[in-house]
Amino acid sequence: MKLLSNPQSDGFYMPGEYEPHQGTVMIWPQRPDIWRNRAKEAQEVFTVVANTIAEHEPVTMLVNHDMYDRAQRMLSDRVQMIPIANNDAWCRDIGPTYVRNSGGIVRGIDWKFNAWGGTKDGLYYPWEEDSRLAKNLCEQQKFDYYSLEEFVLEGGSIHVDGEGTAIVTKECLLSKGRNPQLKKEEIEGVLKSYLNVSKVIWLEYGIFQDETNGHVDNICCFVKPGVVVLSWTEDSKDPQYERSLSGYEILSTERDAKGRKLTIHKLHLPKPQYISKEESEGIVKAEGTKQRKEGDRMAASYVNYYVCNGAVIMPGFHDPMDQPARVKLKELYPDREVIQIYTREILLGGGNIHCITQQIPNSNER
Amino acid sequence: MKLLSNPQSDGFYMPGEYEPHQGTVMIWPQRPDIWRNRAKEAQEVFTVVANTIAEHEPVTMLVNHDMYDRAQRMLSDRVQMIPIANNDAWCRDIGPTYVRNSGGIVRGIDWKFNAWGGTKDGLYYPWEEDSRLAKNLCEQQKFDYYSLEEFVLEGGSIHVDGEGTAIVTKECLLSKGRNPQLKKEEIEGVLKSYLNVSKVIWLEYGIFQDETNGHVDNICCFVKPGVVVLSWTEDSKDPQYERSLSGYEILSTERDAKGRKLTIHKLHLPKPQYISKEESEGIVKAEGTKQRKEGDRMAASYVNYYVCNGAVIMPGFHDPMDQPARVKLKELYPDREVIQIYTREILLGGGNIHCITQQIPNSNER
Repeated sequence: MKLLSNPQSDGFYMPGEYEPHQGTVMIWPQRPDIWRNRAKEAQEVFTVVANTIAEHEPVTMLVNHDMYDRAQRMLSDRVQMIPIANNDAWCRDIGPTYVRNSGGIVRGIDWKFNAWGGTKDGLYYPWEEDSRLAKNLCEQQKFDYYSLEEFVLEGGSIHVDGEGTAIVTKECLLSKGRNPQLKKEEIEGVLKSYLNVSKVIWLEYGIFQDETNGHVDNICCFVKPGVVVLSWTEDSKDPQYERSLSGYEILSTERDAKGRKLTIHKLHLPKPQYISKEESEGIVKAEGTKQRKEGDRMAASYVNYYVCNGAVIMPGFHDPMDQPARVKLKELYPDREVIQIYTREILLGGGNIHCITQQIPNSNER
Repeated sequence: MKLLSNPQSDGFYMPGEYEPHQGTVMIWPQRPDIWRNRAKEAQEVFTVVANTIAEHEPVTMLVNHDMYDRAQRMLSDRVQMIPIANNDAWCRDIGPTYVRNSGGIVRGIDWKFNAWGGTKDGLYYPWEEDSRLAKNLCEQQKFDYYSLEEFVLEGGSIHVDGEGTAIVTKECLLSKGRNPQLKKEEIEGVLKSYLNVSKVIWLEYGIFQDETNGHVDNICCFVKPGVVVLSWTEDSKDPQYERSLSGYEILSTERDAKGRKLTIHKLHLPKPQYISKEESEGIVKAEGTKQRKEGDRMAASYVNYYVCNGAVIMPGFHDPMDQPARVKLKELYPDREVIQIYTREILLGGGNIHCITQQIPNSNER
């Protein structure tokens, strides 16, 4: 059922990703203008990610009708499949954001979606199926949902600690392609009402050349309340350097909703990753879709990991930094298994593990 | 010191790989006729493997002089480096095999090495530095060693349970390029004297198109005494099918040195992996070196994993079977962390993680 109120007024809030889940939702990749070789490699790595999460909690895979049989052949029996129309596979951004109240009732938020910038600087066109997906999914899964018909937001552009604090980037939330009619304070007001937070920390930037206009989930996230990780480089010639440094300075001075200073862990980036000729040639050119050209730098970051019940599923790039990054997350999540998956094919599509997953918090009643 | 006796007569035996180690030895890759792009990617993945093992036990990396600085820049501070001349990077085959006695003294075995088949069907020429490496290393590390000047063997062609049983393949040990002057019984006699085993299980075959003439370490290994894993496929059209089936039948009927029937766990192979055009083009052609051509099938197998203190380091191929293979090894090694590394670049060179590592058993005196 579509609700006309907002989560804050109803006593609902977005829990931290590290709180218990009832499951994870993902979307099956297929479009040949985003995923090379008609998504062959992407489907393989999405399968690995889904099956890995399914070791730890229930996974639901949303698939277009024409992909149902293929996905079923590839996915483990533990992954539930739901046929539901979509334009692409970024469930973090296209799917609902889930909120919960103290009684354990879970509801969805259906943000307006315009493919990361609409006709201004969006990444593909059209995106109608995507914009209907969150609503369709809530209805199929019998979650009541809030629907914002005029406020553009993607789940990857927000992180919360579950205790009243959100982190976002100005680069993304104040971008021209999303809500240019709103002032920063108005945008912050929407976040406060819908995520039910009292403090929004505004970083300036996301990762260099992140085509989402700098989603926060590629540069910074909460490990737990009061503790964040930040993508980092010591290479002062890298354009990322100033971006990470700026984030560090802001996070060092801010306090969270409970008045705590933040502990900041630096997570060193892999070395810059570029699209190869072979990779670029495997992607079909299509009008309205951002081209992926040989030599383009991709926005590779280990921060784009996903926390599920009992585990952390993190990206690997076949890079010497893969191993220290995994060790760092093991230290930060001592009670979880840390599983690193080689995800260059997801990166080629423009994101990583966090971008293709969406958690549904635990409820008491379901 | 070079010893003139043999391990069995001296009371020394080869422990199971799963017994405690004092450390791991590896060799730095560099030759451009084996490793594409002048070993750039190979050096990266060797770095990841070395640094990962170094989380768990000491790692020593052997490097040619001209590579010392580069390796030092890439490897973590926890990896010790020793300059020592070599022709290539397969420490399992080129390095010593280590044996121990009940008093905890460790010694090396310096088998004769001829690059997997010498002038008959060896993989490169010359291999002088390799043939001196085991002896040089034992001398530098102050291990006494046994030296076989007329018996060709590589460490990857044997697996032992540490309780009197070895597994080998006829395809490799009876190959024309190794010890054609010896009968099977004579070869078995050498294994018994040097590994100090009383039972040798002879599989017929290794993995299809394994250029080592079917090393056992790519198809079958011990999880612990009485328990083995075997590379497996259900695809009866795959030439590997008959090979795995034959192995299964032999293992099902054999008993180990203690009279136990073996428990056999099937470890499903990834789908066939082929060399790409780009990969083939990155490898320098050189006289005497086996060519790696576009479309060649590689001998990919998850069994080529390495067991170190507290962990199992296993290959990943960016294949849907990666995840079930990891889950299977987690079940088989419940007390160890299972870490999967994307190792296609090692596979391209002709082997995998087990082939590039060599364990030194724990001693009491060192």
